[in-house]
Amino acid sequence: MSPRWRLSLIGMGMGSPAHLTLQGEQALRRVDLLLLPDKGEDKAELAAARLRLLQTVRPDFDAEAGGGPRVARYAVPSREGADAADTPRYLDAVRRWHDALARAWTQALREHLPQGGQAGVLIWGDPALFDSSMRIAQRVARELPLEWEVVPGISALQALAAAHAVPLNELASPVLITSGRWLRQHGCPADVPALAVMLDGGTAFEALPDPYAWHIWWGAYLGLPQQTLDSGPLPQAGPRIARARAALRQAHGWMLDIYLLKRRGADDC
Amino acid sequence: MSPRWRLSLIGMGMGSPAHLTLQGEQALRRVDLLLLPDKGEDKAELAAARLRLLQTVRPDFDAEAGGGPRVARYAVPSREGADAADTPRYLDAVRRWHDALARAWTQALREHLPQGGQAGVLIWGDPALFDSSMRIAQRVARELPLEWEVVPGISALQALAAAHAVPLNELASPVLITSGRWLRQHGCPADVPALAVMLDGGTAFEALPDPYAWHIWWGAYLGLPQQTLDSGPLPQAGPRIARARAALRQAHGWMLDIYLLKRRGADDC
Repeated sequence: MSPRWRLSLIGMGMGSPAHLTLQGEQALRRVDLLLLPDKGEDKAELAAARLRLLQTVRPDFDAEAGGGPRVARYAVPSREGADAADTPRYLDAVRRWHDALARAWTQALREHLPQGGQAGVLIWGDPALFDSSMRIAQRVARELPLEWEVVPGISALQALAAAHAVPLNELASPVLITSGRWLRQHGCPADVPALAVMLDGGTAFEALPDPYAWHIWWGAYLGLPQQTLDSGPLPQAGPRIARARAALRQAHGWMLDIYLLKRRGADDC
Repeated sequence: MSPRWRLSLIGMGMGSPAHLTLQGEQALRRVDLLLLPDKGEDKAELAAARLRLLQTVRPDFDAEAGGGPRVARYAVPSREGADAADTPRYLDAVRRWHDALARAWTQALREHLPQGGQAGVLIWGDPALFDSSMRIAQRVARELPLEWEVVPGISALQALAAAHAVPLNELASPVLITSGRWLRQHGCPADVPALAVMLDGGTAFEALPDPYAWHIWWGAYLGLPQQTLDSGPLPQAGPRIARARAALRQAHGWMLDIYLLKRRGADDC
């Protein structure tokens, strides 16, 4: 019989085992192989958080003696061209990046599970929200006989809202979840009183034409020991956050942050 | 010393213990008192799911012998006036409803934990997304010396996306999370290619002016044994879903559903 593979995209939350669901734990207990992205030195802490989670859930895991699930580290390719300002060129670059990641996953499955079996990837946050893993799995399934599933996880957005004890949406009104890139290009639709910005990598909130209209809730390294929070009216909190994130990036060598913006005066109770 | 209370708003996911996070489990282990909403016969299954979760996590719980945490059932007041078409009147009605719920929580804390202590509420989905619990806790904290915290949980939206294995957002573009009521009144902002609709209680997708532009992913009773999914181009799937939800509501006596809409032709890979 020819080999068949299964793959679980396991939402892991923010790295703390406290965010893992029972469903995520059960999925992790089943894996024969964990695909582990290697993003280089600057984000080594993120790879370490994934390994800690594996060790917590799978005490049989022993990298040196070879016990428990195998771990296939793969180098995350660089996103060449993804700094393009032009959206079609940006999308092309991201798609080429997904293609390259799919080749890395396909190769890891063939090499480490040549007879087929159950693999897993721990996905930061939730696989459904500003994440590439489903798109990569679709590509792999064109190359291999693969069944894949999604296990939801606590997203950075939810961790942010919980840490600040603030709802994402105002009463009976929507929240737009978007990227820093999109916000810079489009601004906020007039009807929308709440914006959550993921994967900014910068301070797109500075591009809003009317800072006095907004309140911001910001969080960096959510769930990690160096978690840092700030909030306030955007004209005061914005510059403070911009300085803090520059200093923290310098201190830790990397930065992962997220923020929520709401129009002030929107009735929040 | 005068009594002090603590309250955890614990995101429980969709009712299956598989959705509970370790953090949620730990919070549930600490409670002296669980506040249990009683929404009447038609949603008795939801109250039963909360009790099952408590029993799973707290084997010491014994309602008859009085072991383990106490459970305070409170009647969820009716939302009189919340059917108003007029938005200010609707918001007033919802706020009065939150006031009434806050009185119920305050009374339950005073009555069942007269010396103070740790209480919890199991929140369907995530407390940060289209949920009232933070607004109610704010009100209770004006009446009592109360510290409260939020424990994030898997939202219906994430369960929907995982069940369909579909990302909530298209590549590099946003998703608007909104209510059926808002969608009927505002339609979809032109720039926004993905809409997730919570708490519709109806079929607001029928109000979209251009059904041929949309694809829908729908789910009812997510995570429960009667979970039902459908998806497809809106002109075909929309009427099918409207018929299915009417029949299911009839069969089960209640309906809880959610859906995701994306503009067709948006590049999803």
